[in-house]
Amino acid sequence: MRITFCCTDTKPEPWLQGLQAGLPKADISLWHSGDPPADYAVVWAPPQALFDQQPQLKAALNIGAGVDALLALQVPATTKLVRLDDAGMSVQMAEYVCHALIRHTREFDVFESNALAGTWTRRKPLARSDFPVGILGLGVLGARVAQAVAQFEFPVLGWSRSPKNIPGVQCLSGAQELDGFLAKTRVLVNLLPLTPETENILNRRTLSQLQRGAYLINVARGRHLVEDDLLALLETGHMAGAMLDVFRTEPLPAGHPFWTHPRITVTPHTSARTLRSESIAQIVGKIQALERGEPVAGVVDLARGY
Amino acid sequence: MRITFCCTDTKPEPWLQGLQAGLPKADISLWHSGDPPADYAVVWAPPQALFDQQPQLKAALNIGAGVDALLALQVPATTKLVRLDDAGMSVQMAEYVCHALIRHTREFDVFESNALAGTWTRRKPLARSDFPVGILGLGVLGARVAQAVAQFEFPVLGWSRSPKNIPGVQCLSGAQELDGFLAKTRVLVNLLPLTPETENILNRRTLSQLQRGAYLINVARGRHLVEDDLLALLETGHMAGAMLDVFRTEPLPAGHPFWTHPRITVTPHTSARTLRSESIAQIVGKIQALERGEPVAGVVDLARGY
Repeated sequence: MRITFCCTDTKPEPWLQGLQAGLPKADISLWHSGDPPADYAVVWAPPQALFDQQPQLKAALNIGAGVDALLALQVPATTKLVRLDDAGMSVQMAEYVCHALIRHTREFDVFESNALAGTWTRRKPLARSDFPVGILGLGVLGARVAQAVAQFEFPVLGWSRSPKNIPGVQCLSGAQELDGFLAKTRVLVNLLPLTPETENILNRRTLSQLQRGAYLINVARGRHLVEDDLLALLETGHMAGAMLDVFRTEPLPAGHPFWTHPRITVTPHTSARTLRSESIAQIVGKIQALERGEPVAGVVDLARGY
Repeated sequence: MRITFCCTDTKPEPWLQGLQAGLPKADISLWHSGDPPADYAVVWAPPQALFDQQPQLKAALNIGAGVDALLALQVPATTKLVRLDDAGMSVQMAEYVCHALIRHTREFDVFESNALAGTWTRRKPLARSDFPVGILGLGVLGARVAQAVAQFEFPVLGWSRSPKNIPGVQCLSGAQELDGFLAKTRVLVNLLPLTPETENILNRRTLSQLQRGAYLINVARGRHLVEDDLLALLETGHMAGAMLDVFRTEPLPAGHPFWTHPRITVTPHTSARTLRSESIAQIVGKIQALERGEPVAGVVDLARGY
């Protein structure tokens, strides 16, 4: 069995060593143009040339959860696209979102500014019931985030393309229930996959339907958000703030208004990092299952786009 | 039944109205020197004169969890001291501690400084397994915090005076197990009651036993911590930082070195605020139970001091 490794922005050696340790009989190497045919590819944002030159690939295993970069390519119909299910990402998402949520609702950002000024000022506690949290996207990551938020006793609702059932979470679904979901939400968490239907879904129309004083946490993709619409709604006061991990252009360009906006917090696409050892173990398991002809989780449905 | 309300630093009207609504037949009023005898007192940091003038009080109900201010007074042996069990405080503690823990281990403080400088810099993710969280004090608050920390998949251990059993938490107890607890801990969360035995428990000797690069979260009382010892251990690098909500003198005085220390975050004793409506409901329930001669939770054990 041959495996080719083709991941941009990734130091290859530890991955190659880890995959080799998990699949000792496989011939695993870094992809080069003109390589002999491989059975599997382990990929992150690969060039089109990989699929053009390797039409026989049984599967391309993506070392992240989002496959939007992959779906922008032409991939042979016989090559399965497989994403990581979790590999330590969902707990990281839960951490990121709970940190942002608590920081905002407990006003730790205000206390931090006060501390810099050497000012001891207590504030009237805000009521958790005034901050219903709405989660867009209820896959593995969204469900885990919902559970984490619920344990801090916030009202939690969720919205997804197809109906879901998560204990303790009011689950809405489909285009017809999106407006109702937004109207009940004050803290909006975006965990949707990026598809033609979800691109620009966070715009003036949708964000305006949120409860007044809304807060946005975007941990999915920059192209979900119409940036100027957020800025306009912060200006009117309809939106109270945002914590953003993803941007239309990454790294976020110098001089972008998000950097210096007093009510926007920027992090450098760090909400859920691929953890190498967990990802390698998962990819090894998936390749072994595919070789045995067994079904694997995380196969991308090309029709729905994730 | 007469109830006297004697809480310093508290706006009395909404409390008096809420208690009256819950106990419509009771005669409830703000304490004044020379008042006729009452059956119960609702208190926060009352003067000694209250107990001197009201020796017949059946119980004094404290509107907070910590009773150290109360225990500094002379209270008649026939007056039960009763504290709030939870009243919405444990979830607040869980929020505060998880926020501090995630902020430190996910380096949100670093990202925030970088964002102020307009710098997009990703960092190598830290491993959760390198940050075992040790919780000092496993009462209602400590147990709730342990549960919240555990759901983010941190290793969690706890230490308490008497043995406890909390699923998913390695529970140690008693003076003889304190050193072992400290040696296994990197992020130390203090939730102990303040008693003569626990005063100054966070000192050079104990903090030095924590794992190198330790982080302190103090949400109990300022007098648990020997402030100069923390500063010295931050200087040597043994301690990586601290998030402190409580101080030996509150408000933290202007010019105190904690205000400006780059690795200390100061909040104004806000980790678990008394929530009025939940507290009133609990106090009403306790008074009703005491009137029926039933046992109530939260009666202070004078021998152990909490």
